[in-house]
Amino acid sequence: MGKKKSTFNIKKNENFGEWYSEILSKAEVTDLRYGVKGFVVIQPWGARAIDKMYRIYESALRSTGHDPVIFPAVIPEKNFKRESSHVKGFAPEVFWLEKKQGEDRLALRPTSETAFYEMYSIWIRSYRDLPMKLYQRCNVFRNETKATRPLIRAREFHWIETHNVFATKSEAEAQIQEDISMTNEIMKGIFGVPFLPMKRPEWDKFPGAEYTVGSDSIMPDGRVIQQPSTHLISQHFTKAFNIKYVDEKEKEKFAWLTCYGPCISRILASVISIHGDNKGLVLPYIIAPVQVVIIPMHSETSGEKISKAAEKIRAQFLLANIDVKVDETDKRAGEKFFHWEMKGIPFRIDIGERELENGNVSVYIRDTGKKVVIKLENLVEDIQNLGVEFDARLKSSAQKFFDSKIVDCDSKASVKSALDGGRVARISFCSIDSAGEKCSTYIEKDLMARIMGSRGDLLEKATGKCLFCSKKAKIVVYAGKSY
Amino acid sequence: MGKKKSTFNIKKNENFGEWYSEILSKAEVTDLRYGVKGFVVIQPWGARAIDKMYRIYESALRSTGHDPVIFPAVIPEKNFKRESSHVKGFAPEVFWLEKKQGEDRLALRPTSETAFYEMYSIWIRSYRDLPMKLYQRCNVFRNETKATRPLIRAREFHWIETHNVFATKSEAEAQIQEDISMTNEIMKGIFGVPFLPMKRPEWDKFPGAEYTVGSDSIMPDGRVIQQPSTHLISQHFTKAFNIKYVDEKEKEKFAWLTCYGPCISRILASVISIHGDNKGLVLPYIIAPVQVVIIPMHSETSGEKISKAAEKIRAQFLLANIDVKVDETDKRAGEKFFHWEMKGIPFRIDIGERELENGNVSVYIRDTGKKVVIKLENLVEDIQNLGVEFDARLKSSAQKFFDSKIVDCDSKASVKSALDGGRVARISFCSIDSAGEKCSTYIEKDLMARIMGSRGDLLEKATGKCLFCSKKAKIVVYAGKSY
Repeated sequence: MGKKKSTFNIKKNENFGEWYSEILSKAEVTDLRYGVKGFVVIQPWGARAIDKMYRIYESALRSTGHDPVIFPAVIPEKNFKRESSHVKGFAPEVFWLEKKQGEDRLALRPTSETAFYEMYSIWIRSYRDLPMKLYQRCNVFRNETKATRPLIRAREFHWIETHNVFATKSEAEAQIQEDISMTNEIMKGIFGVPFLPMKRPEWDKFPGAEYTVGSDSIMPDGRVIQQPSTHLISQHFTKAFNIKYVDEKEKEKFAWLTCYGPCISRILASVISIHGDNKGLVLPYIIAPVQVVIIPMHSETSGEKISKAAEKIRAQFLLANIDVKVDETDKRAGEKFFHWEMKGIPFRIDIGERELENGNVSVYIRDTGKKVVIKLENLVEDIQNLGVEFDARLKSSAQKFFDSKIVDCDSKASVKSALDGGRVARISFCSIDSAGEKCSTYIEKDLMARIMGSRGDLLEKATGKCLFCSKKAKIVVYAGKSY
Repeated sequence: MGKKKSTFNIKKNENFGEWYSEILSKAEVTDLRYGVKGFVVIQPWGARAIDKMYRIYESALRSTGHDPVIFPAVIPEKNFKRESSHVKGFAPEVFWLEKKQGEDRLALRPTSETAFYEMYSIWIRSYRDLPMKLYQRCNVFRNETKATRPLIRAREFHWIETHNVFATKSEAEAQIQEDISMTNEIMKGIFGVPFLPMKRPEWDKFPGAEYTVGSDSIMPDGRVIQQPSTHLISQHFTKAFNIKYVDEKEKEKFAWLTCYGPCISRILASVISIHGDNKGLVLPYIIAPVQVVIIPMHSETSGEKISKAAEKIRAQFLLANIDVKVDETDKRAGEKFFHWEMKGIPFRIDIGERELENGNVSVYIRDTGKKVVIKLENLVEDIQNLGVEFDARLKSSAQKFFDSKIVDCDSKASVKSALDGGRVARISFCSIDSAGEKCSTYIEKDLMARIMGSRGDLLEKATGKCLFCSKKAKIVVYAGKSY
């Protein structure tokens, strides 16, 4: 697509911002030249990875009892107004449609609680209708006024939102834990993106939630990026929308709601940032748009046999559902190597006469830069095994990086030093209820950082005193500078 | 979801309109109670079928060299204005966003030519960049002012749009034929929805196309419904957007564009309408959200063994990627039978003690209403074979119905009688170029029907005279009353 250099050499750890912008453009993940602030084109290389990520997430949701549904992309203004904290939280971010005479003013969905809940109040009648667990895969829109950044902060993004209804609070809270586990299994276990499940402070929860557990990942520059959040919705909401059921004893009760929102386009931003290196993208085998590239090494005497062999291998891979590409363009071999390396394809196989004679091929491995020799007859099985090992290596080195970025801090000075140095500070704190908000001032105002919250999956007991008010510390919180 | 009767008995052929509305509601395909004209909720039963249909279409597109891409849902007003027939054709149908100060006025995409072409003028430089074949799966928006009807005529719909670029007109025209073949393989071959590929008259083509080949299917009431269209885009468009490439001889040339738009939500409307019967939905095995339902027939003495057996069969099916449901609710068996029959599940297996003893189960087959006995040990294979036969039967009876609806007409009176009787008329006609428009008056004004066009995949030579102007007939056209 247009002429672009095929080599890449930017030091990710020295200038992550430049590295990120450049690799998205060079590898043709996104194109910023669409001409509308905050709206980018996600090119095939990005779209194919996103499609694979959607399938993984959707399959996990189905296996935990979620059914797909398709809601309208527009929400009437009156739905928003039914719950006051929600409208207050979202109103500034809403894109409105030009109003048509005689019709309600319509919003482009920034999130769909107020669309789903309208129907839930109709659909849910009896305890037999519960639990109801629905999800949709869709685009949502938020009128970002701050600087936008492709896949990270945009005006349109591509996510999944689940909206679940339960009879009791304890079932709803079990769902919150299921959501955290799913984030863990997919984000960390499959995409290799470690994160902290963070129960947000009272002053930073989702507008309309009783509480929120976000998941915070860490970018190469040490900044925190919010990934999938799960919310226990407040009964204010349930009551505003009148979502009630009749229980086994014929008694009418308000239901309990949860929602969960993995933003696939944003997760791709983390995947790209965390695994990439100075040569370009490094994409996990499981989501790489092309998993193996084959380079036919023609010689003057080799005739058609190299192309035929490449085609045969390609067919074998396709049959095994391995995404493969044969590069038969007239570029020089070295140029091809650099190009596909920059695009992050896990494995490259060069096929020439010698390889055909020996019945062996050498596989160049993107992350280690090493080559391994494998037999042509075991090609499919060996590549599949190498793929599993490839993803395990990415995961393990991402985890090491992540762990190295979290430091225990026992003074304001050490917090400042951690945050200024691009790390996440682990701190003893008084409380993340509204009572603790004033203790967040130093971090949130002076250091321009954020109290991310406390662990949402387990209780970390604090020792000693809160660093800021000197009252007895009740909880361990994490703080970081964020995107 | 709420209390609804589980039986269904409306005569589809006597009152198709009522049948259609009722079955969508009773089978929980769509819910019209969202409260915004033209926007409906597609419930899980519809969403799961749509998801399967998307996968079939996307996989066919990938295998013919199309890559996925994700474009913004908004298009700046200035893009629309670059091609005059396009803006004239679409402007009345556009939903606009409230304009933000200092930013362009934005449209919600009604279709994305003017978004893609903006980027194509940047991306395409050389013959090496061609062909470029991209598709996106997305929602589009049109401000329908006429009466809306769920899945058929809506303000938001769910489709795939391809936008392809070629070096030469002949390659572009070959793509048009590939699109028609794909429609044939999928719509007719997989979903069992026959259609006529219709090259539209000059006065009915896509705004901005050199020509359009639509595909017209026929509903049970004899009305024609437009399904996927493919368009050869006019060079006015290519020039307005300045989409050029440099050829092998370093000469600059304008490229050729095609686009194709299968609307998945609308195809579902045809699938439901054509295959359904008086008992409710009949869904092709290949897209049914649940392909087999198992009803455990407990007795007072059977204890847990029936449930265990049902669970074992369920696991076998899941392993073979067959979508299965075990209905363990406390409804009466008869009620369950009616319910799942109405929902259109191809196969029902009742399991009781006798079945377990014999090692056989009987399978109730939705379309024929017959039962076949199969061995438990061959269950998966037999169901898969029955599924293939099931879809073949639906396809064949849809084809019979379709063929019976097309009649040759050799007089104005026979045309009137065919169209008033809910049939499609096959007519000798002078010309579908603009010269022929005045001959369409009788059909389009007096009979309130439409000249659908002439065959887009082959040439049907006319004999005799045009029925309307008595000049020599040059072409065979089809006419019908349409949705």
